[in-house]
Amino acid sequence: MAKTVEKITDRDQDFASWYTDVVRVADLVSYSSVKGSMIIRPYGYAIWENIQKILDREFKKLGHQNVQMPMFIPESLLNIEKEHVKGFAPEVAWVTHGGDTPLEERMCVRPTSETLFCEHFKNIVKSYRDLPILYNQWCTIVRWEKTTRPFLRSREILWQEGHTLHRTAEEAKQETLRMFKVYEDFQRNVLSLPVITGKKTEKEKFAGAEETYTLEAMMYDGVALQNGTSHYFGDHFAKAFHIEYLDADNTWKTPFQTSWGVSTRMIGALIMTHGDNHGLVLPPAIAPIKVIFIPIQENEEVNKVIDNLTHELPEDIPFEIDRSGKSPGYKFAQAEVRGIPLRIEVGLRDLEKNEVTITRRDTLEKKAVKLEDVTEEIKSLLPIIQKDMYNRALKRRDSMIYEVNNKEEFLKTAKEKPGFILIPWCGKTACEDKIKEETGLKSRCIKEDIDTGLCAYCGKKAKHKIYFGKQY
Amino acid sequence: MAKTVEKITDRDQDFASWYTDVVRVADLVSYSSVKGSMIIRPYGYAIWENIQKILDREFKKLGHQNVQMPMFIPESLLNIEKEHVKGFAPEVAWVTHGGDTPLEERMCVRPTSETLFCEHFKNIVKSYRDLPILYNQWCTIVRWEKTTRPFLRSREILWQEGHTLHRTAEEAKQETLRMFKVYEDFQRNVLSLPVITGKKTEKEKFAGAEETYTLEAMMYDGVALQNGTSHYFGDHFAKAFHIEYLDADNTWKTPFQTSWGVSTRMIGALIMTHGDNHGLVLPPAIAPIKVIFIPIQENEEVNKVIDNLTHELPEDIPFEIDRSGKSPGYKFAQAEVRGIPLRIEVGLRDLEKNEVTITRRDTLEKKAVKLEDVTEEIKSLLPIIQKDMYNRALKRRDSMIYEVNNKEEFLKTAKEKPGFILIPWCGKTACEDKIKEETGLKSRCIKEDIDTGLCAYCGKKAKHKIYFGKQY
Repeated sequence: MAKTVEKITDRDQDFASWYTDVVRVADLVSYSSVKGSMIIRPYGYAIWENIQKILDREFKKLGHQNVQMPMFIPESLLNIEKEHVKGFAPEVAWVTHGGDTPLEERMCVRPTSETLFCEHFKNIVKSYRDLPILYNQWCTIVRWEKTTRPFLRSREILWQEGHTLHRTAEEAKQETLRMFKVYEDFQRNVLSLPVITGKKTEKEKFAGAEETYTLEAMMYDGVALQNGTSHYFGDHFAKAFHIEYLDADNTWKTPFQTSWGVSTRMIGALIMTHGDNHGLVLPPAIAPIKVIFIPIQENEEVNKVIDNLTHELPEDIPFEIDRSGKSPGYKFAQAEVRGIPLRIEVGLRDLEKNEVTITRRDTLEKKAVKLEDVTEEIKSLLPIIQKDMYNRALKRRDSMIYEVNNKEEFLKTAKEKPGFILIPWCGKTACEDKIKEETGLKSRCIKEDIDTGLCAYCGKKAKHKIYFGKQY
Repeated sequence: MAKTVEKITDRDQDFASWYTDVVRVADLVSYSSVKGSMIIRPYGYAIWENIQKILDREFKKLGHQNVQMPMFIPESLLNIEKEHVKGFAPEVAWVTHGGDTPLEERMCVRPTSETLFCEHFKNIVKSYRDLPILYNQWCTIVRWEKTTRPFLRSREILWQEGHTLHRTAEEAKQETLRMFKVYEDFQRNVLSLPVITGKKTEKEKFAGAEETYTLEAMMYDGVALQNGTSHYFGDHFAKAFHIEYLDADNTWKTPFQTSWGVSTRMIGALIMTHGDNHGLVLPPAIAPIKVIFIPIQENEEVNKVIDNLTHELPEDIPFEIDRSGKSPGYKFAQAEVRGIPLRIEVGLRDLEKNEVTITRRDTLEKKAVKLEDVTEEIKSLLPIIQKDMYNRALKRRDSMIYEVNNKEEFLKTAKEKPGFILIPWCGKTACEDKIKEETGLKSRCIKEDIDTGLCAYCGKKAKHKIYFGKQY
């Protein structure tokens, strides 16, 4: 593209503008006349493809199979589970006409597919031998949000939704936690996101679930991003949809169910956790391009060195060579805005000393490296960057978690300190509602159950240690 | 699944019922309360995943990048290119409400995404240096069909759509043909489909295209399935959407455009070309499972032999072992209905002779093979099956193409012989309309241009050799 690298708003001055600048200048997203939807551009989509590839392999390793359900849900089908329809009906897109013809029954575009999976399970499950069913679906869902931001809150969301059906409650609970662990490992090890994990409160759990486990990432500005959930449904849905199986003891029983999902929102978390004033910073494990080679001069020797170096790189280190003909300074800025983990500058002056310059994107540290050591240096730096990024994010996150024990301190912290507040809490929805009303904070997740102490807000007997925080 | 292999209708008695039996009994598809949409089950979806994997690799090799556009198109955007909206408006699904709120402007669910890509191209293209743009999108589209059949005609279609933008007409024409060739190679070499290829007539080309190239597969019953298209748009869309680029000579010019797509319909072609009275027959190159091992007895030696054999198989030969505990006869029928290319029966009687029995799914030929030769036999049989399936389909297709030169013969053949009819033809839409009216046949594609002879239907001067046939 013929353009100069555009200016990005200062991150500490206006975080919201910084964010929209980065997604635009790094060519992740573009807008269209479709309000509330985004265009995911090649570089942004390549990140999503990497996420898909890694998670899909994990799911399949654990025995999950991919399927594809319809994208429409007839109103009567959505209405079957009462909690569920209450949660989703206000924000679905309704299809009312096919061509010029009004539909006999209107359909919504799926906001999530529990109802479709349940209807299907009812049709295909007969015996305990059919269980467990471990299904996953990659698809786009639609939620008619009023205010939208790329990746964070969008009318169209690319995601995966796992749906499983089990013989026993115990097995379904284990599956809920097993997939929760898959998400946690992925976000920590691949995305370098130090997520806080735990159960949602009654008020915040998924519409229709018995238990919801959540991964809560803290963004640079201290605001939470719910970055994935895993739900245990018990047999609520199965009962509502009359799913039954004939057990080994020849009686009909109701199976137990889970669902779990993560979405392109994780890309938003990547940006807002790791990015800086130069643009994106991508963890090597998810970066579409891990190394960029920048020829400082258009010169035969420079080209030959770059050719040799790229030939030595193993296949799992995708690279690019910037032969755009732009100035070195432009190329550096462009590599930075795209968050490419390592930049290798190859110039005649360095080559006289048989060296190139390697720059880490995360720290912007430069280092002269002998030609014969470059490949090894790249191989050893990438996992170091991966780990350092995690640790830096962890340190920042921990520095923004405030543990308080009384209302005064709680209100003061809520007002003055961005981040999460960890409090002993009574567990009552009425108390949670009041906290929201007075402070704007919502519960993130339960850290642990406790049986001593008093609720930091209402003073009644505490039941949990819990995180509160603002959210995207 | 606990069930017996169900009876499949005889293919020669009732081809339509045979088809729906196969897609159901082979667990490719299931129905739901969403009329006109299908559920793609794990085995069917695994075929689609293989199609995606192979084609996506080819596209990327040629420099195409994946993107994701919105799934909705505002009515005013759809309306910009007149031919295009005329072609699609009668069959789109309209979203009119978000939750309880009527939309200011209704939107359709994309029936295809030319309009969205054009709007995006207008925003991102400035200079000749930005060209060519080579984009592809994997997504679901919606066309509100009245009568539907799984894979062949469905309200929701999983597909890919390539959209490219070029500096010159010549380059765009080359791209149209280049991608057409990718499809042809894929369908011939991977799907073993002997497609007939050529240009569509004016009447049958894509709404808004200057030229449409089509791949026409002939099903077992002689009926055509349009199995993919590649369109050259000229600058029609670019002009309608005011896409311009600043050329090297410093003048603003209009670029030229292509689009091309294939869909899950190819799975329908696979079934209806290769399937038989036992069920599916899958070409090895696309089969999710290439080899199935069937233990005849539950026995330690049998298990050991199977373990050894499967360990020897290279990674690109995915296999399954049927340990269902069902009878061998049931397992054989199940392997056949799923169309698995090779079946290896491992039983004690054969093992006494140090042998197993290998059965080809395409011919049902059995062969005793020494244990030490099994891996080599599998490796050599798979490409033979692939080629034999193509040649058998080609022979059948050619035996059902009738070349005729006058109206009497044309009408008689149209009435009596299922298949394609190849005729010299005048090229006039009025003549094509009359043929459709009198015979029910539509033009498939132009084989070649000619400058002698008379139209076999209207007797005017012939311009093309062209195929006519019924279609799904």
